[in-house]
Amino acid sequence: MDDLVAGLLAGKVRPLAKAITVVENDRPGKRELLKKIYPQTGNAYLLGITGPPGAGKSTLTDKVIVKLRQQGKTVGVIAVDPSSPFSGGAILGDRIRMQQHALDDGVFIRSMATRSHLGGLSKSAVDVIHLMDAAGKDVIIIETVGVGQDEVDIVRIAKTTVVVMVPGLGDSVQIAKAGVMEIADVFAVNKADRDGSDKLISELRAMLDMVKNKEKPEIFRTIAVDDTGIDELVQGIYAHGDRVLETGLLRKKIVEIAESELRAYLLDTIMERSTNMASYEDVVKRVADKKITPMDGVDEIFIGLGLQKQN
Amino acid sequence: MDDLVAGLLAGKVRPLAKAITVVENDRPGKRELLKKIYPQTGNAYLLGITGPPGAGKSTLTDKVIVKLRQQGKTVGVIAVDPSSPFSGGAILGDRIRMQQHALDDGVFIRSMATRSHLGGLSKSAVDVIHLMDAAGKDVIIIETVGVGQDEVDIVRIAKTTVVVMVPGLGDSVQIAKAGVMEIADVFAVNKADRDGSDKLISELRAMLDMVKNKEKPEIFRTIAVDDTGIDELVQGIYAHGDRVLETGLLRKKIVEIAESELRAYLLDTIMERSTNMASYEDVVKRVADKKITPMDGVDEIFIGLGLQKQN
Repeated sequence: MDDLVAGLLAGKVRPLAKAITVVENDRPGKRELLKKIYPQTGNAYLLGITGPPGAGKSTLTDKVIVKLRQQGKTVGVIAVDPSSPFSGGAILGDRIRMQQHALDDGVFIRSMATRSHLGGLSKSAVDVIHLMDAAGKDVIIIETVGVGQDEVDIVRIAKTTVVVMVPGLGDSVQIAKAGVMEIADVFAVNKADRDGSDKLISELRAMLDMVKNKEKPEIFRTIAVDDTGIDELVQGIYAHGDRVLETGLLRKKIVEIAESELRAYLLDTIMERSTNMASYEDVVKRVADKKITPMDGVDEIFIGLGLQKQN
Repeated sequence: MDDLVAGLLAGKVRPLAKAITVVENDRPGKRELLKKIYPQTGNAYLLGITGPPGAGKSTLTDKVIVKLRQQGKTVGVIAVDPSSPFSGGAILGDRIRMQQHALDDGVFIRSMATRSHLGGLSKSAVDVIHLMDAAGKDVIIIETVGVGQDEVDIVRIAKTTVVVMVPGLGDSVQIAKAGVMEIADVFAVNKADRDGSDKLISELRAMLDMVKNKEKPEIFRTIAVDDTGIDELVQGIYAHGDRVLETGLLRKKIVEIAESELRAYLLDTIMERSTNMASYEDVVKRVADKKITPMDGVDEIFIGLGLQKQN
């Protein structure tokens, strides 16, 4: 264990990979490992990259990695995919696209499934971020697909969140529905050579004018496939990071991240303990039979766990 | 309260609206209300309609409602939008589109925000489904935007889930990433007059061939704006529902729904009780300061709630 921790903190690839396996598979020693590395976390720049399917996120992420590597920065990537109830695993598409980085020790890529029974960013993802952070990655990119709960969680854990949009996915009502106004620190309008990119940007600006009490995100045009606009985007990301520091928002952000992590562990833990109860399946069965309400079921579980029932 | 329950069970609009307000705003009597109506639930056909932004879900939902009304069925609609941390509320786009139903007592539409601090389908949404169910709605449509955690939850609560896709949103890797293979009982390829619809359908079929141990979803072509393919889609939905009955999967589905509901209440309840603890903010602060790990924080909260610490 001490060797593993020492290797990880020295930034070596194999101990990091091994530590991630320990964490993902809930192996013995997981808790001790996380406790040991936790004081060494908090130095990485956490960067969220999100947006709807088809927006070209993976290609854009790839180009951002190249740029960061040119600047001498080490990079960790966590690609969080919606869970597949069939495979339980993540799709390899991102890894295939990013295989050019496979021989670069300065880039560590991990695809993860979100665990569907828990909701939100799973504590495994949070743990893996901690491990990459302790291993000295300068930037940790969290790439998510779609727009939903996962993305709302990422805004809390990332210092800067880039929302990737693409012309042709819908009108301004769709933009608003997707909730991106609230989570975006920076916009990348990708495939900006396509028809409709000007319209999309003016719709974005119009929507942004309606949002108050929040700094207006910068909008960048990118064509990720031929590297257009990536320089400017990366500069824009760091500019946002600097503003977070200047405006004293960083402490607020750190507290939000802590609360988000705490919540992920809390929900994971209560589900784990509940489903491990001998009477759990019987409670589910009686709810299914409408003999008790779901609220009654929760009362029973709480009593079973030693808690008083809710009011 | 007895009047409210009686009015609701009689299918009257105003008691239903009032009951939803009680539930959404956590008003006194909520629990009693839900307990009283719970035995009268379980009769509605729960229909999930989901898909990425821009796919035309709202228009399609609208046309499905018209068709169901022509068949004499009453309809409840819950449009679940990703939560806006700013407004806390849902966007009105759906209601605007669906205002033609405003004068029809047989259609009851409610937009809801998912509550971002909880993840998954919030218990409020589940409660509102119960209320509409008890009020005698024949079909309850749960419309969600995006693909993510919410959608994975809906597959558990809906008898039939329709995934709406549209040509041009991405290649087959994107389809796979979106996780739709697993949650779809029926596909609607909307805007089927567009270029690329044949390609999308053949990609879908190819992906479906890779999925085992699951009945292959039927794929319907629709052009919702001019009502093309809606008849066939509605028939396809009912055909799926019939097959669920025939194959004995219904009991499995009912148990899954019960567990999903129980989980929503459980997670809501633990978050509510944790955040209400006097020491909660102090725990968050110490995690933020890296004085304790998130796991230590969870231990403290559990002890504070009267539970033993984990493991």
